[in-house]
Amino acid sequence: MLHSVIMAGGVGVRFWPLSRRRQPKQLLDLLGEGTLIEQTVARIEPIIPKGQRWIVTNREQMAMFREAAPEARDQRFILEPMGRNTAPAIGLAAIHLLSEDPDAVMIVLPADHRIENIEEFRRCLMTAVDLVSNSDILATIGIEPTRPETGYGYIQVDRSSKLPAENAFRVKTFAEKPNMELARRFFESGEFVWNSGIFIWRADVIMQQLAEHLPQWYSGLQEIAGALGTPQEDEVTKQIFGSLKGISIDYGVMERAPRVVVVRSTFRWSDVGSWDEVWRLIEQDADGNSCRGNTEMVDSRNNLVLARDKLVALVGVKDLIVVDAGDAILICPRDESQQVRAMVEQLAKTGREEYL
Amino acid sequence: MLHSVIMAGGVGVRFWPLSRRRQPKQLLDLLGEGTLIEQTVARIEPIIPKGQRWIVTNREQMAMFREAAPEARDQRFILEPMGRNTAPAIGLAAIHLLSEDPDAVMIVLPADHRIENIEEFRRCLMTAVDLVSNSDILATIGIEPTRPETGYGYIQVDRSSKLPAENAFRVKTFAEKPNMELARRFFESGEFVWNSGIFIWRADVIMQQLAEHLPQWYSGLQEIAGALGTPQEDEVTKQIFGSLKGISIDYGVMERAPRVVVVRSTFRWSDVGSWDEVWRLIEQDADGNSCRGNTEMVDSRNNLVLARDKLVALVGVKDLIVVDAGDAILICPRDESQQVRAMVEQLAKTGREEYL
Repeated sequence: MLHSVIMAGGVGVRFWPLSRRRQPKQLLDLLGEGTLIEQTVARIEPIIPKGQRWIVTNREQMAMFREAAPEARDQRFILEPMGRNTAPAIGLAAIHLLSEDPDAVMIVLPADHRIENIEEFRRCLMTAVDLVSNSDILATIGIEPTRPETGYGYIQVDRSSKLPAENAFRVKTFAEKPNMELARRFFESGEFVWNSGIFIWRADVIMQQLAEHLPQWYSGLQEIAGALGTPQEDEVTKQIFGSLKGISIDYGVMERAPRVVVVRSTFRWSDVGSWDEVWRLIEQDADGNSCRGNTEMVDSRNNLVLARDKLVALVGVKDLIVVDAGDAILICPRDESQQVRAMVEQLAKTGREEYL
Repeated sequence: MLHSVIMAGGVGVRFWPLSRRRQPKQLLDLLGEGTLIEQTVARIEPIIPKGQRWIVTNREQMAMFREAAPEARDQRFILEPMGRNTAPAIGLAAIHLLSEDPDAVMIVLPADHRIENIEEFRRCLMTAVDLVSNSDILATIGIEPTRPETGYGYIQVDRSSKLPAENAFRVKTFAEKPNMELARRFFESGEFVWNSGIFIWRADVIMQQLAEHLPQWYSGLQEIAGALGTPQEDEVTKQIFGSLKGISIDYGVMERAPRVVVVRSTFRWSDVGSWDEVWRLIEQDADGNSCRGNTEMVDSRNNLVLARDKLVALVGVKDLIVVDAGDAILICPRDESQQVRAMVEQLAKTGREEYL
């Protein structure tokens, strides 16, 4: 059977001051379209039956989802006792699925991305599902790049290897976020697509691959699998999962696995990775400003201003992010918005817990 | 007798959002030293007897001063029914002084400037007072420039005309705010000083000069003088003063008068004309930031941040003004801070009275 597994463990510190420990990125309505997780759920709901839709998260975020989103009622939760990056989280999901459904096929989706052209998105997913359902293929969705972006990982497509499915190719290599020169070469070559972080495979196949490439993690997961449904489940999960090192599925498995396929797609996709990206994604007025709340502008261009009741007044300002979260207001040039993380680290270091 | 006349009618729109109709610039503590008018009063109090210290302002501001400053108790108020720039305001003060003291010598001072080296300031004033007490000289204080500033008016000194008083010279010309090229020539010539807007003269002499150069204004003022102390005083003042056109004393009298003298002085002076100037005047930390209230900085330099309880967090920000007034927050690059006026105009135009 087909299952969806939404990965929703992170906080999204780059969206401070809106993102907080108690209000993670996926629960924010950054784009004025509803929360990111709500959008993610809505995208897969029509193609995945109730009872087969899962969210991997922690206990605190589960409570928040349940409170914030009516959609949470129709989801099943797999609880990570702590964050250990994507490989352990995906393994944990796989053993849960296998305990109910030895033939489980899983679609792994980040909770906090944005996608347009949902019909094409679903078509790509189903192409991948067809490819993996009766095989040991690991499939991923690659996004046709529209610019030489340095903020995304890339996948090199083996163009000589057209598979008997629409837009499906073998993967040559995975490449981490490149510098601008390399990003340009990737973009111009036509051989590279963006790594969307969306994966499709049989649960038993990803477990085999974990056994092969991450044997220590595999053993731990098998130990947890043995405890599922017993009174010791929570305690064993906590202890064993906590002992695993954090590692990403890209680095731990995808870059090493022999049979990896990418479905090239052209739906518009973003990882919504920074305030600057939010500015790009939401509608701008004739001066390039994107504003919400109580704002006033004089001779100001290309700004993102998320205000509240307090009037945010910009005079002669260009290319700035301004976000009022009520108790704190962030001011940051658009091209520095990756650095917001450093502010959160500084607040933690100086013990300003009330802002975390 | 010697009288001080502090000119305190304006709002100081360039200090929005702190300056409001109900909270003018001179009542702000922009520099962390007390309000500007409090400082102005304190500077002249030791040299002017009680009963001879006057403030020219409007009814609303008088009420505010009285409420805000204990010093206001020892001041006498001359009320302008409306703002008409400096020439009518000074004329109004002169007729009030003359009605009590035909020998009145007046020191005219803006309410909202900043001065260091107060002893030298007072010495310069007394030099000027000695020069004008028994003569028809109009005296002004010129400030030795420390940079080619485009924000101030200049006075050209006639260096061949050393008068029998310390640092006193005849004035050759008054020059309005120059462009940068001209400001550099003024600065390098050594012949120009900044126009401080501080004037010293006999009240009867300035009235003679008004009669000579602004006869219409003079007639109006004489009509008001005739009504002083009568039951019609307020009504006549309101009607006649309202009929006068606004004109500055520099343009209306100083540039045309035959016997103008400048006392060159080297005390540190500023007209506190913009948020950028406030940044220059108050203490900066090692990164060039001047902060008050609840702030946090990451990789940010040369900013002025006046925060309150709400955390103002800057990430990668350079050369910015941020001022939180509670109901509104201004964000403006330092070198655009003259444009704050345009924001106030826009708020007025769009009917956002609550912010004016």
